[in-house]
Amino acid sequence: MDLNSDVGEGFGQWRLGDDDALLTVVTSANVACGFHAGDPTVMRRVCAGAAEHGVAVGAQVGYRDLAGFGRRFIDVDPAELVNDVVYQIGALDAFARLAGTRVAYVKPHGALYNAIVHHEAQAAAVADAVRRYDPTLPVLGLPGSVWLRVAAEAGLTPVHEAFADRAYTPEGTLVSRREPGAVLHDPDEIVARCLRMVAEGLVTAVDGTEVPVSVRSLCVHGDTPGALDIARRLRAELERAGHAPEPFAVPAA
Amino acid sequence: MDLNSDVGEGFGQWRLGDDDALLTVVTSANVACGFHAGDPTVMRRVCAGAAEHGVAVGAQVGYRDLAGFGRRFIDVDPAELVNDVVYQIGALDAFARLAGTRVAYVKPHGALYNAIVHHEAQAAAVADAVRRYDPTLPVLGLPGSVWLRVAAEAGLTPVHEAFADRAYTPEGTLVSRREPGAVLHDPDEIVARCLRMVAEGLVTAVDGTEVPVSVRSLCVHGDTPGALDIARRLRAELERAGHAPEPFAVPAA
Amino acid sequence: MDLNSDVGEGFGQWRLGDDDALLTVVTSANVACGFHAGDPTVMRRVCAGAAEHGVAVGAQVGYRDLAGFGRRFIDVDPAELVNDVVYQIGALDAFARLAGTRVAYVKPHGALYNAIVHHEAQAAAVADAVRRYDPTLPVLGLPGSVWLRVAAEAGLTPVHEAFADRAYTPEGTLVSRREPGAVLHDPDEIVARCLRMVAEGLVTAVDGTEVPVSVRSLCVHGDTPGALDIARRLRAELERAGHAPEPFAVPAA
Amino acid sequence: MDLNSDVGEGFGQWRLGDDDALLTVVTSANVACGFHAGDPTVMRRVCAGAAEHGVAVGAQVGYRDLAGFGRRFIDVDPAELVNDVVYQIGALDAFARLAGTRVAYVKPHGALYNAIVHHEAQAAAVADAVRRYDPTLPVLGLPGSVWLRVAAEAGLTPVHEAFADRAYTPEGTLVSRREPGAVLHDPDEIVARCLRMVAEGLVTAVDGTEVPVSVRSLCVHGDTPGALDIARRLRAELERAGHAPEPFAVPAA
Repeated sequence: MDLNSDVGEGFGQWRLGDDDALLTVVTSANVACGFHAGDPTVMRRVCAGAAEHGVAVGAQVGYRDLAGFGRRFIDVDPAELVNDVVYQIGALDAFARLAGTRVAYVKPHGALYNAIVHHEAQAAAVADAVRRYDPTLPVLGLPGSVWLRVAAEAGLTPVHEAFADRAYTPEGTLVSRREPGAVLHDPDEIVARCLRMVAEGLVTAVDGTEVPVSVRSLCVHGDTPGALDIARRLRAELERAGHAPEPFAVPAA
Repeated sequence: MDLNSDVGEGFGQWRLGDDDALLTVVTSANVACGFHAGDPTVMRRVCAGAAEHGVAVGAQVGYRDLAGFGRRFIDVDPAELVNDVVYQIGALDAFARLAGTRVAYVKPHGALYNAIVHHEAQAAAVADAVRRYDPTLPVLGLPGSVWLRVAAEAGLTPVHEAFADRAYTPEGTLVSRREPGAVLHDPDEIVARCLRMVAEGLVTAVDGTEVPVSVRSLCVHGDTPGALDIARRLRAELERAGHAPEPFAVPAA
Repeated sequence: MDLNSDVGEGFGQWRLGDDDALLTVVTSANVACGFHAGDPTVMRRVCAGAAEHGVAVGAQVGYRDLAGFGRRFIDVDPAELVNDVVYQIGALDAFARLAGTRVAYVKPHGALYNAIVHHEAQAAAVADAVRRYDPTLPVLGLPGSVWLRVAAEAGLTPVHEAFADRAYTPEGTLVSRREPGAVLHDPDEIVARCLRMVAEGLVTAVDGTEVPVSVRSLCVHGDTPGALDIARRLRAELERAGHAPEPFAVPAA
Repeated sequence: MDLNSDVGEGFGQWRLGDDDALLTVVTSANVACGFHAGDPTVMRRVCAGAAEHGVAVGAQVGYRDLAGFGRRFIDVDPAELVNDVVYQIGALDAFARLAGTRVAYVKPHGALYNAIVHHEAQAAAVADAVRRYDPTLPVLGLPGSVWLRVAAEAGLTPVHEAFADRAYTPEGTLVSRREPGAVLHDPDEIVARCLRMVAEGLVTAVDGTEVPVSVRSLCVHGDTPGALDIARRLRAELERAGHAPEPFAVPAA
């Protein structure tokens, strides 16, 4: 099993989350590339830390929107979105190389992640960018999303992720953050759900339905001390259960 | 002899210069990387055009200053400047690779170019960035500059450039743009000076002194129709004189 | 009758259109406020020119998106959009005051203009911003749009504009730019249509239907020499027909 | 006596300092205007809070440099700097008006503050901007600075500030942050120094010299819990000593 989390989401004077601590917990780091968050100095430091801890460096590509932290849908022309994504991967890869590693996978961020669950043209643009940059890079996403389908059609390797602290619908999609109960907070519940998703491939949806869920990587958060504690505990429990976290992607040497 | 020029200096809706025409004239293209000008879509188009015409792609790295077009000195912490430069080279290299080539050299832009003629710490930062990214990349600059000295000390290959349309001091440096006569406009004079710099290694300074000048690449402009005509004519005259322009840098395959 | 046009759409080193010429033709200038285009120096110059020629200064507010020139829909939280719009109007008003005048009206730009034809929440946010800043400011928009309706509900004065060079549907809306024939190019046709819209309140739709159109201001372009010529000719013809252009809004002293 | 502090230095998703707490302690709030920090939503919230607590709203104008937080000198053309400052004041004033108040003074931020202690042309540009926007606005600065001299020459009202936690040279200037001991950390010492500056107009310099210091406003920090505690204590001690903090500037109604 893999544990992934967003890191490197500061910018200039501003910090967000505890990158150093997170890099001792997760096995895959979704590194912001400067469009929605992240600056060159943060990127370099995070890549060095990831390399030091054997954490895979993923390009967390987003819309060009620092003011909105990439959390607002932007109706970018797909022909330009391809280039925005290539730019971000290339910039991050430079720092990964400096740290003796390589970008190992790609995961879209925020509103882009949400958009391409359904938005065929933008999904295809992101997939095209990855394919052109390096078709051996696996991509992380939601099982059943348009994004993972078009990525597979483009010859990329789709990797299924599940969310440790999010409620699921009976259809196996995430309950919208706008609805009550969308985010789980009880550490015991979160850890237990995750272990069951990993061991049995099942999760209990908001209406009580048992839903099959495919998961190669669990997405955790680290932007609050509480979230970090949950991630640490989840890691420990996974190890205890014989699912010791390890990166799903090994960068090309 | 090599002819270099700035290209890809548009941003979003805005255009500057005639990139397509310039790429049929020069042999080395200093491509803006998004910090002072240039956006991913412009970068991709310019890299594709450069590759098509056998023009070497150079990373024209600058201060992060779209509003000032990179023409204002910024007292960036050298430790951060290293990373700003790595980021820009990495991003451009992604598009160069997409076009089947690679970044072949690095040339600082505008105020950064001017600053590191003297600013030791920033010069060292840029050199460190290039060295860490790829120590085989040659760097373009002014003979006698601190920049080329520290680049050489860092193990990089310094390449001397001369400016086709700029007046020189008796010391062999450029007359400041703030002084009258700093920029030459007469096409005949410009072409004649260039041919003499190439053939004899001499240029007549503003005070009439004959100054030795070392030149492996001539920097021309293309941001006005007149400038483009001069560049075309200069290229033709160089060919006639047996100095047919060819890139000074051949990218690694 | 009023003639309005976008001006001040440069940024830093980049220019777009011929502001000086346009300010001798139009009676209302939609001035970019720095979010999608425009910088403080451009804004100051344009406000001074507008004041000199008796042209009303309008705040052309847009999404925060220099890279996209404000032409991409952004799903901004309406609560934040209110503030983005207030910021832009306030900044422009400072330059209008320096020039001895005031912001006289507000017109949304590009994708925001298009979005709030239908997007109720964003339309209400823009109206709320104008109302809070200065409820006496009239707002320019498309007759029948959600935008003008909610503006009126907020107590603002909606002003109807028609587009000189755009094709109309039988419903009186604009033909999408993605469809052929959306933009008219024949100067004779454009001028004749405008005169008829002004004199008879009618326009011929793409299917030949005669459509009633309400117009207090005609929107013209000036970003090409051809467009500028059409605007000049339209002004002359309006004067000849007894509809001498004058601003629809007179700023508070 | 007045207590001033920087507030509103977040941007988008990022926060810095505890604005709400600070606004219950200081009497003058230096509000970031969006160029080095601050966004429209932060500005609106801070202006509302300041108005609620009777805190004067000051425009903290800075270089356009989000990535550097305005802490890097930028060699901006003074003719453009004038406009950058006008833009920032105008934008903030819009939010001050929404909150029922007005911008009451101007204080430059970070590297701009430091530059215009000596940089005559940039100092004159900032003064010119304030004078053109509203010549009745007082300006905050370091006694003896070029900035306050040229502001006075421009007809503005210079207001002297002292720094609660900074070491002074025998000449009455601040010890550079690059030197050890530049920043004081002992709460007792800081409070005692401030009370003496206020009561006796004297401060002990790093070499033991007693230096006269003119102070109408004390600058405090609030970006750490410790700094906030010191500010609270300083306020209480000032009240006890009969120097109850009150704003030096009362905005025009």
